[in-house]
Amino acid sequence: MTIKVDPALLTHFMDQISTFGATPEGGLNREAGTRDHAAARDWFFGELRRRGYQTRVDAIGNVFAILQAEGATDAPVIMVGSHLDSQPFGGRFDGAYGVVAAFVAVEALREQAEGAPLGCTFVVVDWMNEEGARFQPSLLGSSVYCGEIGLNYALSRVDGDGVTVGDALESGGYRGTDEAPAADIYLEMHVEGNDELEKANLQIGPFSRYWGALKIRAAMHGETAHTGPTLMRDRKDATLAAAHAIVGVREISDRRGGALYTSCGRLVIQPNSPNMVADRATMFLELRSPDPDELAAAEAELMQVLADSAARAWVTHEVISIDRRAAGAFDPRLVTLCERQSAALGLGTMQLETIGGHDAVPVSRRMPGIVITVPSVGGVIHHPTEYSTPQDLCNGANVLAGMIAAIHVAGGDLDKTLETRT
Amino acid sequence: MTIKVDPALLTHFMDQISTFGATPEGGLNREAGTRDHAAARDWFFGELRRRGYQTRVDAIGNVFAILQAEGATDAPVIMVGSHLDSQPFGGRFDGAYGVVAAFVAVEALREQAEGAPLGCTFVVVDWMNEEGARFQPSLLGSSVYCGEIGLNYALSRVDGDGVTVGDALESGGYRGTDEAPAADIYLEMHVEGNDELEKANLQIGPFSRYWGALKIRAAMHGETAHTGPTLMRDRKDATLAAAHAIVGVREISDRRGGALYTSCGRLVIQPNSPNMVADRATMFLELRSPDPDELAAAEAELMQVLADSAARAWVTHEVISIDRRAAGAFDPRLVTLCERQSAALGLGTMQLETIGGHDAVPVSRRMPGIVITVPSVGGVIHHPTEYSTPQDLCNGANVLAGMIAAIHVAGGDLDKTLETRT
Repeated sequence: MTIKVDPALLTHFMDQISTFGATPEGGLNREAGTRDHAAARDWFFGELRRRGYQTRVDAIGNVFAILQAEGATDAPVIMVGSHLDSQPFGGRFDGAYGVVAAFVAVEALREQAEGAPLGCTFVVVDWMNEEGARFQPSLLGSSVYCGEIGLNYALSRVDGDGVTVGDALESGGYRGTDEAPAADIYLEMHVEGNDELEKANLQIGPFSRYWGALKIRAAMHGETAHTGPTLMRDRKDATLAAAHAIVGVREISDRRGGALYTSCGRLVIQPNSPNMVADRATMFLELRSPDPDELAAAEAELMQVLADSAARAWVTHEVISIDRRAAGAFDPRLVTLCERQSAALGLGTMQLETIGGHDAVPVSRRMPGIVITVPSVGGVIHHPTEYSTPQDLCNGANVLAGMIAAIHVAGGDLDKTLETRT
Repeated sequence: MTIKVDPALLTHFMDQISTFGATPEGGLNREAGTRDHAAARDWFFGELRRRGYQTRVDAIGNVFAILQAEGATDAPVIMVGSHLDSQPFGGRFDGAYGVVAAFVAVEALREQAEGAPLGCTFVVVDWMNEEGARFQPSLLGSSVYCGEIGLNYALSRVDGDGVTVGDALESGGYRGTDEAPAADIYLEMHVEGNDELEKANLQIGPFSRYWGALKIRAAMHGETAHTGPTLMRDRKDATLAAAHAIVGVREISDRRGGALYTSCGRLVIQPNSPNMVADRATMFLELRSPDPDELAAAEAELMQVLADSAARAWVTHEVISIDRRAAGAFDPRLVTLCERQSAALGLGTMQLETIGGHDAVPVSRRMPGIVITVPSVGGVIHHPTEYSTPQDLCNGANVLAGMIAAIHVAGGDLDKTLETRT
């Protein structure tokens, strides 16, 4: 059984959604909780409401568009989606593609049903603050949905200007009061963000596993002083200490080779004045690995790097927070279903592992879940030049449509879905 | 001949001026062109106008309070002052003390004259944007006054939010149209910003020389990428390159010893998102030395550090601008006059060299000029805990009053001033 999405509908929605927060470079600046983010959501869910979806906004600003099963209120719930927020200098496909693909896949299934009653409830979801660019942690909305972080904690996170998540949602009209719908299965489409599919000339990459990650916020505490008269030996320079640490953190990865990724993406220096020695430098560090032992060893090395770096600049250091994300696997039945549906469409597949976080990671700890990727040209992601071809986008949406159709036919039972020959 | 300022007036003015932009830590956040900066100027020059000074605001926002000599319009002009702007997390004394001391010194001289006509014109000046924290370069107002930088260039400098100097002055009411008064001699009081006077138990430190400085803005250019999936070997991390450079710049100073100071006070990273590899890291670097050869050699080493650091992180680098400030000497006659006046008051002196910039540096290239310092407890400067005792502040103001009185008696002729025995 194959089922095809409407390519024109997919293209139209991708084009339209890309206008909200569009940048001159062809990318997006649509950080979570901004006016552009709210405008994108207004437009997208307005369209879905006009097509008969019922929409709900929960307390952390996740938005759900629901197509209710006929009759029974205990029908299986299949949730599909991703996120409409972007990095500050991000691309058009990361996140938005998954939300649009979810919608066109459900529409294709609806079309095929030709008005016949649906046996499952379908939910198109747009998770709040997946990116974690403006507010940390990332995966905020999906983590609250799954109970992995508390609502009040999430609402009180602040951006660089001191604005809370709660206030940002409030001002955009997305601090909702609706109950989030429960779900039984979660599927998410995404662009790959690496060039493994492209290099192997394959079209579909289901993620079988997700790497573990440690997200560490650490600060160096020095003392402000004038960069002019202050003797070099008297300076307690927080920025110098952070520089030593950033070099040292990279060296952890260089020593350990391919299965340990490190980064310092964000560094906040105070007062950050040209002629002031900084008294505070806060680093947002990440360690990622598929191997829990590797990650634990790297964490110990990182703590040593922080202490050594502080000592080299005569400052003190503080580990402010450690966010631990365990490695794990997506549901192997969904991986198999993805491979079968792809094969039925003549598309080549390759199992991949995700290193970056996705909303499907917390969600899949609560229910069978998966992320499926399509190629991103040159493996570019989080950049205005991020690009996937219309054909690849359409392939992915077709696979998604086939998967939800197969699950629907099997009455939401994954084991039964796999018994059915496609 | 000695002359004493009114200690109560000095204390009152220091207390009042410290209320504008006061921070909970007891310091100041009164950056150039802000509302608090304008409010401080409004209050201060309002007080002076009520005491008979004529005020002028020039096109770059320097403010002058003028006490005109009787009769002849070609009377010598003695200018005294400093700056009312502060660092974002600065202290109460840096700059403000010099402006208040100038005022109380002129008032003391006026008092002593008992209504007799003045033979010199006295100008109390408050230079715009000495600090260079919000707008670069520092010493902006005094450099325009001296013709070292152009007015249009100065007005078009932007802060971190893209606000120009011109617009900031406009909104505070300090984009003036008055002609700046010409001057013949310039004197400036300041807090030391080091602990040499304190350690030597001396009260007055005239600066005999100023160090040279190179202020270099350089950027590392990498490529944004996701800190998750992007292979470590594919990352072009601008922040990593900047970290190597910051470590390397410090090493230049460590290798060369005491007469070469280096710093990176400000570092701007883009996009500075926790899970993005940065594509741009802009460093505000400084090299300072009293020795032009040392400075030139260090500059060559810095260029090598930038190139090496970029290569180590597989990025490119760019030197955006180099602001060169030559080393030089203040007028030795003013140093001698300061020593004589101090001795007459029973105050111990020590000749110092200034490493930080002061408005007197550009001004003294146009006319005889000097900066004279009083002790700062613990040598702290550019920090909320910056503190000088009322006694030290009063000593400095008395020395200044004595100096301008001596120059006044000699009809503005410095050589003649030194011939007169005090």
